[in-house]
Amino acid sequence: MPGSPSLVIDPALPAEGYQLDVTPDSISLRGGSAAGLFYGEQTLRQLLPPQALQQAVPGSWPLPVVHISDAPRFAWRGVLLDVARHFMPVPDVLRFIDLAAFHKLNVLHLHLTDDQGWRVDVPGWPRLTTVGAWRRESMLGSRQHGRFDGRPHGGHYSSDDLRAIVAYAAERHMTVVPEIDMPGHMQAAIAAYPELGNGFAGEVRTAWGISRHVLNLRPETLAFCRQVLDHICDIFPSPVIAIGGDECPPGEWQSTGEERGQAWFTARMAAHLATRGRRILGWDEILAGGAPPDAVIAAWRGTEPAALAAAAGHDVVACPDTSVYLDYRQSDDPGEPTPVGTLLTTADVYAFDPVPPGVPADRIIGVQANVWTEHMESARRVDYMTYPRLCAFAEVAWSPAPRDLTDFESRLTAHLRRLDALGVNYRPPSGPRPGDARPDAPGNPRRLEDRLAELHEMTADLRA
Amino acid sequence: MPGSPSLVIDPALPAEGYQLDVTPDSISLRGGSAAGLFYGEQTLRQLLPPQALQQAVPGSWPLPVVHISDAPRFAWRGVLLDVARHFMPVPDVLRFIDLAAFHKLNVLHLHLTDDQGWRVDVPGWPRLTTVGAWRRESMLGSRQHGRFDGRPHGGHYSSDDLRAIVAYAAERHMTVVPEIDMPGHMQAAIAAYPELGNGFAGEVRTAWGISRHVLNLRPETLAFCRQVLDHICDIFPSPVIAIGGDECPPGEWQSTGEERGQAWFTARMAAHLATRGRRILGWDEILAGGAPPDAVIAAWRGTEPAALAAAAGHDVVACPDTSVYLDYRQSDDPGEPTPVGTLLTTADVYAFDPVPPGVPADRIIGVQANVWTEHMESARRVDYMTYPRLCAFAEVAWSPAPRDLTDFESRLTAHLRRLDALGVNYRPPSGPRPGDARPDAPGNPRRLEDRLAELHEMTADLRA
Repeated sequence: MPGSPSLVIDPALPAEGYQLDVTPDSISLRGGSAAGLFYGEQTLRQLLPPQALQQAVPGSWPLPVVHISDAPRFAWRGVLLDVARHFMPVPDVLRFIDLAAFHKLNVLHLHLTDDQGWRVDVPGWPRLTTVGAWRRESMLGSRQHGRFDGRPHGGHYSSDDLRAIVAYAAERHMTVVPEIDMPGHMQAAIAAYPELGNGFAGEVRTAWGISRHVLNLRPETLAFCRQVLDHICDIFPSPVIAIGGDECPPGEWQSTGEERGQAWFTARMAAHLATRGRRILGWDEILAGGAPPDAVIAAWRGTEPAALAAAAGHDVVACPDTSVYLDYRQSDDPGEPTPVGTLLTTADVYAFDPVPPGVPADRIIGVQANVWTEHMESARRVDYMTYPRLCAFAEVAWSPAPRDLTDFESRLTAHLRRLDALGVNYRPPSGPRPGDARPDAPGNPRRLEDRLAELHEMTADLRA
Repeated sequence: MPGSPSLVIDPALPAEGYQLDVTPDSISLRGGSAAGLFYGEQTLRQLLPPQALQQAVPGSWPLPVVHISDAPRFAWRGVLLDVARHFMPVPDVLRFIDLAAFHKLNVLHLHLTDDQGWRVDVPGWPRLTTVGAWRRESMLGSRQHGRFDGRPHGGHYSSDDLRAIVAYAAERHMTVVPEIDMPGHMQAAIAAYPELGNGFAGEVRTAWGISRHVLNLRPETLAFCRQVLDHICDIFPSPVIAIGGDECPPGEWQSTGEERGQAWFTARMAAHLATRGRRILGWDEILAGGAPPDAVIAAWRGTEPAALAAAAGHDVVACPDTSVYLDYRQSDDPGEPTPVGTLLTTADVYAFDPVPPGVPADRIIGVQANVWTEHMESARRVDYMTYPRLCAFAEVAWSPAPRDLTDFESRLTAHLRRLDALGVNYRPPSGPRPGDARPDAPGNPRRLEDRLAELHEMTADLRA
């Protein structure tokens, strides 16, 4: 064992790149920046025997002689964690970050608010958490079944919690991009403060799916949104702030005779964030009617919006649901927990090509896997749905094509021993174990053709 | 700020004691051993503002000028965590340890097996985990209601997981005392290997309560028990190994005409562990018919068994259910989740007097709070039931009487800010929040008089 590595920052290397040389006598690690060194260290950790990853188990480990010169393909290597549908306690969020950083991802998109829960304290708006952070019960399984569990669910993060999450991620060279989803997906906030809505006087949404109750566009409501975003800017240093913009049913705006539409709203929020030196990230719905020029587009509705956003001159984060939505079912095995969405195996994720034909590569600034948690009631279930698919995704995000699935699968077999050592409750390649099933929460599997046709229809306004 | 403390080990101090001197110019910490220094450091952490406890938030903090000379009252300051009724993932166990050590507890009694689940890998017995670690569903609420959730539950620890838990605890001067509960509470093992039982050919128990299916006393079964305990000894360096012995219904042994009773069985297990240099810990049921002389007795059935065990010459860990069973309800508020057992407020725990009148104090080697998890489906629920009652318990374990409840309550108010900083989901002193209720899992509150009468009856054989 050659002992500790020598660490050097070498500005001639790509900022996130590194060079690792292990000889019988020495370990030399050069990084283009502190981030590059960090990624080199993750590679080193993967070169050690899996037991070396086990917490608190001391030992001296063999290391192969290697020369590795490495740098990432994409600048934005993201994973979204939905803490709105199911609240995740801080220690579990830190662990989620740790595992993602081990896979060299560098963005945690934190989905903090939705119809089913509001998860962030905002000074001056206490009911956002005393009311908006709790729901009376949750749906069990997909909404077609109409089943509920009768159990309250909720929780929220204090500003200190969020600062701790940001600091922990920063130590791992990961940026936390917070999302306040607006003007739709706001039922939890409206339940707390009905004056934000259009006459809705109900509770935090207990069913999955999209609420038709959205923000109104009164000046006071826009002031509320700006106040929330100001607080978010105070906590999160990220240059990009996500403001959602997805799935906003137009009904309530039309019925109040409101002529100013979603594009108008989005432009106002983007302008406000610009005064704080931030850009917005929005879901591809914000392309309709024209998105603010420097908006980053999270292209999620199948593969078409990425090209449309790029053609409109936007930076794009590619996250098509049919390739990277990790709540979608992992196999057709009847033992999969709450099977929803289209079939999305680890091999399917590995085959994801983020740059659509004809699109300039530099418009696609990155890729992102999205972990929506309607059907993930615990950190262990999140593990099961996230891994090993996020391992395949991490390679898509880091390494250029072409890909060799057979080679990946054999490397994955070795990598699963590392996940074992890290205590990750991944889905076994052989299929779900009997205890992974959730007969109490039935799903609603979709066929890919049907979903693609639906997405094509949903995005018609972008092509118009 | 006087900077970093000077640390000195001073063998003249009690091994777990410490002296802390903070002056305007210096911090001096002397400990009777590394453990003493560790406890002094925990006191230091409590003297800092709560924000200093927040993970990853850097800063420089004020410290009061103090002179503290301190040492614990009891050598065994334990907390039991039941990972059999609900499996707890490793990261949550480590966090549980961290919080208990912050409260200067030094024993984690890990209840690894029960009728409802077997949580430890044993070489040569794979079905203990492939079968025994999973149950088809769980009961919702106390068993009188007969409700089930239809959802599989389970999980287990690898040997490496357990070694990591032991090492993590050792860094915090905490001993992990593993428990393999035998010869009763064995339905999960018997479901995996029916040859261990008496004709039972069913599944891991899904209902709470006690199974009537227990181990048989064939030589092969005793060999199995020894093999399991050998493996446990390989993993856990604890000088004390818990072998349960509680609530073993005699039915199946009587019906097979077995004359060798539980005392015979316990003596054999104790003799085997003695060859490994270990003592047993057993629940007070093992006193019936005479326990092995050096057995430590966990006196749980009310207050009477502690005195009986001490009179029989045993070392005693006092853990009477009516004072320290943290699954018992915290108030009469209808919003308490799954209210079971007798009323056990934080003030009740604080009033617990571990040494019964007339018992030589040195026979009571310690105290233990027990967290049984039938009705705790998540680490957050464990937080809610454990804190702040474990804060009161920690003071019982560390400091001699007399106690001043008013003083404690005012100190607790300040301490809750620390638990906030540590992200602990404690029960607010003002009562449960609406979201803490579990209407899906109804309870079965008991009256103290009824429970005491029942306990008196249950322990009649000990007094005979």
